[in-house]
Amino acid sequence: MISKKMQEQVKNSSVIRAMFEEGKRLADIYGAENVFDFSLGNPNVEPPEDVKNAILEVVNDSNSTGIHGYMNNSGYENVRAAIANSINNKFGTAFTPKNIIMTVGAAGGLNVILKTLLNPKDEVITFAPFFGEYRNYVKNYDGELVVVSPNTIDFQPNLEEFKEKITANTKAVIINSPNNPTGVIYSEETIIKLSNILREKQKELGTDIYIIADEPYRELAYDNAEVPYLSKYYENTIIGYSYSKSLSLPGERIGYLVISDQAADYENIVAAANIANRILGFVNAPALFQRVIAKCLDAKVDLEAYNKNRELLYKGLLSFGYECIKPEGAFYMFVKTPIENDAEFCSLANKKNILIVPGSAFGCPGYVRIAYCVAYETIEKALPGFKALIEELR
Amino acid sequence: MISKKMQEQVKNSSVIRAMFEEGKRLADIYGAENVFDFSLGNPNVEPPEDVKNAILEVVNDSNSTGIHGYMNNSGYENVRAAIANSINNKFGTAFTPKNIIMTVGAAGGLNVILKTLLNPKDEVITFAPFFGEYRNYVKNYDGELVVVSPNTIDFQPNLEEFKEKITANTKAVIINSPNNPTGVIYSEETIIKLSNILREKQKELGTDIYIIADEPYRELAYDNAEVPYLSKYYENTIIGYSYSKSLSLPGERIGYLVISDQAADYENIVAAANIANRILGFVNAPALFQRVIAKCLDAKVDLEAYNKNRELLYKGLLSFGYECIKPEGAFYMFVKTPIENDAEFCSLANKKNILIVPGSAFGCPGYVRIAYCVAYETIEKALPGFKALIEELR
Repeated sequence: MISKKMQEQVKNSSVIRAMFEEGKRLADIYGAENVFDFSLGNPNVEPPEDVKNAILEVVNDSNSTGIHGYMNNSGYENVRAAIANSINNKFGTAFTPKNIIMTVGAAGGLNVILKTLLNPKDEVITFAPFFGEYRNYVKNYDGELVVVSPNTIDFQPNLEEFKEKITANTKAVIINSPNNPTGVIYSEETIIKLSNILREKQKELGTDIYIIADEPYRELAYDNAEVPYLSKYYENTIIGYSYSKSLSLPGERIGYLVISDQAADYENIVAAANIANRILGFVNAPALFQRVIAKCLDAKVDLEAYNKNRELLYKGLLSFGYECIKPEGAFYMFVKTPIENDAEFCSLANKKNILIVPGSAFGCPGYVRIAYCVAYETIEKALPGFKALIEELR
Repeated sequence: MISKKMQEQVKNSSVIRAMFEEGKRLADIYGAENVFDFSLGNPNVEPPEDVKNAILEVVNDSNSTGIHGYMNNSGYENVRAAIANSINNKFGTAFTPKNIIMTVGAAGGLNVILKTLLNPKDEVITFAPFFGEYRNYVKNYDGELVVVSPNTIDFQPNLEEFKEKITANTKAVIINSPNNPTGVIYSEETIIKLSNILREKQKELGTDIYIIADEPYRELAYDNAEVPYLSKYYENTIIGYSYSKSLSLPGERIGYLVISDQAADYENIVAAANIANRILGFVNAPALFQRVIAKCLDAKVDLEAYNKNRELLYKGLLSFGYECIKPEGAFYMFVKTPIENDAEFCSLANKKNILIVPGSAFGCPGYVRIAYCVAYETIEKALPGFKALIEELR
């Protein structure tokens, strides 16, 4: 028999599975091209050509033996040096390879750092709406996720409530900007205030509270919006990065952690995170893609494709009477549902062959997440359905 | 501050780190070519040419868009089908894609299945000598590793003691054959007896006890030795496989789990293992290498290279007076130390620029593990050191 924890997980996952099955059922009836799947954050924009070229370069290099072998658990030293340099050039930081641990995507990185930091019952704060997996990642190490309720005015974090929820057991705060599911970028003002609150509370409580910045969407910022680099504002900072979205490589599981050397207990965090990477079974980030991304540090996916989707969907939805914040980053739109029950709204959308995710899954009922990392035509073809939906509900 | 569990880990790891540092120190003084590093299971034999060709084929296929995207957490359906077929052809089994979950190597697979099965305090039995990471993997899920003491006659499992150590809390048994560190293959007779004991005990205790077969060394069997396929002997079987050694791809983190549909609670195990793969942060096995290995199912590394190393090292050590079992598989030799203290013997070996691992790390003091997945010349050059070592200790 499976474990008790996993029995719960299997039960809960049946909702998502049901949705997935419903999508398949619709595709079988109407054809996949007539089902508008906005449910997944799977980038439809292809990786930049540099990625293919880099793979060919690495594989065809006749001098390279052992390219698929083990390396240090933290990854290749030269790859980590290249990443550190690249961050330093962009953000004026002073990282070295020692600050960087290559990880199996950001999901791997978050698990590594949570295993490193959390004792059972330690609290990790995050801001609704939030990526639902945080709950699972924190539970993996018997920590407790404490959710700050959403500020639905502009979806910047609710800092008043945040301050109240910090306790002596608060070990970390997960920040995700550009945000999944809202597309909001946390402003510099927000980050400064948040950092000041944490510094005060650390002093008051005599504890260390780490910011874990989950940044898979960092490069997906529209209109040249700035995404503040957290380590510049707060000492106890750990950044989880991923190439899943910036290079459209989600299936390859490649990312890294940046551990600021200003973080309390820095040496031990680095040592422990390396061990966690090993004993959790990641062992190391995939070897080939470490070399590949080191050759693609200045490459980016075609952001304009997502931007065109954003404009089309945003203007369309607004013209039909939907309410939502225009996303500044990522490829999600978080839309207020015309009826209170977001799950019911998703069911109604299903009947128009539109697949979207209820805001409840992100700790923010009354909203839905539309992932617009799809073909432009998918949005064009789905818009009449969105229009009909809101009209029928009036 | 890091978690209490990880504080312990960091403390314990300092021994291995010290060894690693010692190796680097020696290499700096004497030159890397004069330091004989037998400490790591990092294959020196290059992957078969098929691997490179497969990578080029996948990447150059002009029809393939989305090859780096997400897929189902269990991996590509067609890759899993190809693997199931390949296993069925070799072993007369009847697996389908549903039985297969692609994993981030065998280490990832073991973590996934242990997370799936273990409640806190559940016991997992393994046979000394054993791969030390099992202890960490089981601890990750608050289980308890129960070690059956070694049978140093032939290093087949001690089944008498095994029987005694099975309790109502026994959830699983980890079997590793060909074995790290001994190179021994558990015989069909062993497997049949072990299966019968488990069946009896299951009946007696009214529990399900799963065999978890950790099989990264399956293809590395010399003299056409047979490695029994566990699911044919025992119903509650889960197999963890890896291409790390069979195709020399340890850095790429690609393997799979086989979950027998005869296993108790099969449907839930499959569902839960998929979720575990996701929430532990693996998400899925690396996409490109899933496609690559599907094109290389009949490829193998040059076993003869390891075999030549085996013969050279075995004959050499025996002629100097060392005692050891001739390994039937893998690329390790487990040698009795001429003095009782294996750690001390390793220190003495260090002084001859020979790096080896004490048996204590595998739950079997009085022995050392020599990983002979090195260049033939390394063994040639190291043999005089081994000779001098034993002579000085006489």
